[in-house]
Amino acid sequence: MKLEKCITEANMNQNLLNIQYAVRGPIVDRAAQIEREIEKGVPKPFARVVRANIGDCHALGQKPITFIRQVLAGAACPELLGSSDIPEDVKERVRRILEDCTRGSVGAYSPSNGLQLVRQHVAGYLAARDGVPASPTALHLGSGASDLIKSVLTLFVADVRGKPPAVMIPIPQYPLFSGTLSELGLRQANYYLDEENHWALQLEELQRSWEQASVDAHVRALVVINPGNPTGQVLTRKNIEEIIKFAYDHDLFILADEVYQENIISKPFYSFKKVMYDMGAPYSSMELASFVTCSKGWAAECGLRSAFVELLNLQPRVLAAFQAARAVMQCPTVLGQCVLDCVAKPPVLGEQSYEQFARERRGVARVLAERAASAHRTFNTIPGYSCNTIDGSMFAFPRIEIPARAQAAAREKGMAPDEFYCLRLLEETGVCVVPGSGFGQRPGTFHFRTTILHPREEFQHMMDSIRGFHLQFLKTYS
Amino acid sequence: MKLEKCITEANMNQNLLNIQYAVRGPIVDRAAQIEREIEKGVPKPFARVVRANIGDCHALGQKPITFIRQVLAGAACPELLGSSDIPEDVKERVRRILEDCTRGSVGAYSPSNGLQLVRQHVAGYLAARDGVPASPTALHLGSGASDLIKSVLTLFVADVRGKPPAVMIPIPQYPLFSGTLSELGLRQANYYLDEENHWALQLEELQRSWEQASVDAHVRALVVINPGNPTGQVLTRKNIEEIIKFAYDHDLFILADEVYQENIISKPFYSFKKVMYDMGAPYSSMELASFVTCSKGWAAECGLRSAFVELLNLQPRVLAAFQAARAVMQCPTVLGQCVLDCVAKPPVLGEQSYEQFARERRGVARVLAERAASAHRTFNTIPGYSCNTIDGSMFAFPRIEIPARAQAAAREKGMAPDEFYCLRLLEETGVCVVPGSGFGQRPGTFHFRTTILHPREEFQHMMDSIRGFHLQFLKTYS
Repeated sequence: MKLEKCITEANMNQNLLNIQYAVRGPIVDRAAQIEREIEKGVPKPFARVVRANIGDCHALGQKPITFIRQVLAGAACPELLGSSDIPEDVKERVRRILEDCTRGSVGAYSPSNGLQLVRQHVAGYLAARDGVPASPTALHLGSGASDLIKSVLTLFVADVRGKPPAVMIPIPQYPLFSGTLSELGLRQANYYLDEENHWALQLEELQRSWEQASVDAHVRALVVINPGNPTGQVLTRKNIEEIIKFAYDHDLFILADEVYQENIISKPFYSFKKVMYDMGAPYSSMELASFVTCSKGWAAECGLRSAFVELLNLQPRVLAAFQAARAVMQCPTVLGQCVLDCVAKPPVLGEQSYEQFARERRGVARVLAERAASAHRTFNTIPGYSCNTIDGSMFAFPRIEIPARAQAAAREKGMAPDEFYCLRLLEETGVCVVPGSGFGQRPGTFHFRTTILHPREEFQHMMDSIRGFHLQFLKTYS
Repeated sequence: MKLEKCITEANMNQNLLNIQYAVRGPIVDRAAQIEREIEKGVPKPFARVVRANIGDCHALGQKPITFIRQVLAGAACPELLGSSDIPEDVKERVRRILEDCTRGSVGAYSPSNGLQLVRQHVAGYLAARDGVPASPTALHLGSGASDLIKSVLTLFVADVRGKPPAVMIPIPQYPLFSGTLSELGLRQANYYLDEENHWALQLEELQRSWEQASVDAHVRALVVINPGNPTGQVLTRKNIEEIIKFAYDHDLFILADEVYQENIISKPFYSFKKVMYDMGAPYSSMELASFVTCSKGWAAECGLRSAFVELLNLQPRVLAAFQAARAVMQCPTVLGQCVLDCVAKPPVLGEQSYEQFARERRGVARVLAERAASAHRTFNTIPGYSCNTIDGSMFAFPRIEIPARAQAAAREKGMAPDEFYCLRLLEETGVCVVPGSGFGQRPGTFHFRTTILHPREEFQHMMDSIRGFHLQFLKTYS
């Protein structure tokens, strides 16, 4: 009898072995294990695990937007629309969406780039956002931004003049990028964000990164995450202009991860598209992929997998190949597309749903602003912690000093110091955050990423737990 | 000003340029164009386009299963469950699903392999299907079978002992396979199904294909589509045993595309898993990936993107890499998972929804059986047509004789003869089917694939149109 498997660690796709995704990584696995232990009655120094590892607003207690959920229910089961409980604008929205579905069923395939109606509404949304024309034909809907980012990055898998392709990504970054580059076998060219300067992108650092990568690779594309994840900055218009010029001068395709554009707390958000357009020729005809999702923002329907990319100025043959690859996967979920329709064209003043919608949306914005201010304030009062203002996204990414003895203890266990720190935090307080090493950070610095959208009491409990843990940790290891 | 784009046909991922996906290909594009022309009042020799290109039951008029849609509506908008119109078992189902969603929202992420509850129900469904144990941990939910098939095929992207990897696929095949192999840069090793023997898999042909591919490639995996798409056969148990032995002898990983297992008309369906298990050692410990979807069968909710793969006997490190790659994409749509829950655990006798569910399900089965018999009968009465019995799936794949003069006319236009035939059929009758060349066929033979689930009148109109067209076509080109 043969013992060997057909496919083994040795003969499988080696790229897949390099994938790290800390947001669902070993610390999160341990959190799930602890939850099971608590259920079985294993005694712990805390009552329950507080999950702060993933940007999942509903999981943190944010209530779904009623309008979206009524539209989903009606689209799934139009018979329910007879009910007088359903507002008229919901009924009308469902009617229009179903008109655009083949024979009125969300269970039929849509075009692979998404329903025409939804893309029209998204184009309207973008035009209003930017004051710049937008076309439904430039829009491609997907099952989450991750899905679309992977499709776009796939375009770059090609050696150029004998050199392997590389993609520039920020550090810290959202590990979707490092994970997907690993899977696709694209080289990762890191540029460090300037923590001392509010996580801005410095041109000298972009240049340094590009030059270093260009020694033995061909840098094809530049990823920018704005608002920043995990870093929470919102780029200034001037910084975006500099980045666009840099990309132009270095023949780089810009991937703008703009998924947190509706999670804006203080500074204004400028899309790369708007800035490129406003800069005029030659910048306004540069290639650009801008990613937007329904998983974040006030909708925050991440479980429903809905997003779009706006692709601008691509060579037609490249665009056709992108579309062919997407078509093989059929289409994104039609109920997810319904969510996007609601996000792109929410109720307006005068419609029956408007008042409740506006109230719910304001509530979401208020909680985000409060938590962002509170997390920033609290972290900066913990000895050894420092934290930039959180201007956007839904995360805090404080920098922490880890005593030399603790770093040594971590290395003894084969762990990164911040991984060790976060694991101790989890084991002692139940708070589950993601170590900075999962996102990347300047060597010698340590951080963690925590979501901040928990209900007030839980948020306060988490903050108190982190502070208490850290003081004890300093005592133990100083 | 620079004229060159950053990414061009010359410097992009060359694999993507080879993707062909006839199911959404040029003839289908032309059909859409004709529909727009009709809307604009351009005169045509027919009133409207009959789409028969894609296996989309709802688009053909099949009504969604009420139970599924009520569960979806309730899961999206639990407030609606107060209504007395909603059966108790729907309410109970929704309650249980939402218990398994983080804080009761389908808008929260699920585990990347899917909700625990749904995987438990699927395991129960598989155990009942096969009389063989099934485990929720072997199950991985996805956004359609296409998504999962691509993930599994990605594992094989690796040279072995200096040889590039190849995957054996049937011809005719479903072009998801050829398209995905192209994208991944895996070689396609064709084995021809035996049309004269009811599209069976002949061992000699498998051997021939393997030997030919092995000259300059390492054959890693064997794809079997059962029930067949586009060919509509259901494999006998004996044939499956032979295939399993063949795979064992040649160290091949089996990918069993079993998505049409609920579209069974006459012969019994045996899963590869069951047959492997029943064969005992050493076959019962072979690696296997079996794909099942909610897009087909009586649910046919293809727009909602829900499917699963059962992965058996994988080396743990390989499985971990698969899971890591899946986790980067977060999770499949949770409302899609709700559909799968209903499919895996439909209403049973005694539950309030049962009677309506059973009636609807019988209706679907009856239409399929009627259309399959009628298509088979009709096609075999058209001169120059021959068509095997349709035992499963939802397609007919008749073979057609195309006169030499028509073949010459096609080649003059740079088209395959069956592509030319299908385009003429579309232009003259409005019937949109997919040429056999989009699926592959033995050289010198010609076919097309048509879906058969249209409403009775439309189906009859389609059959009459095809017959009338063919007789005229013979006159023109004989």
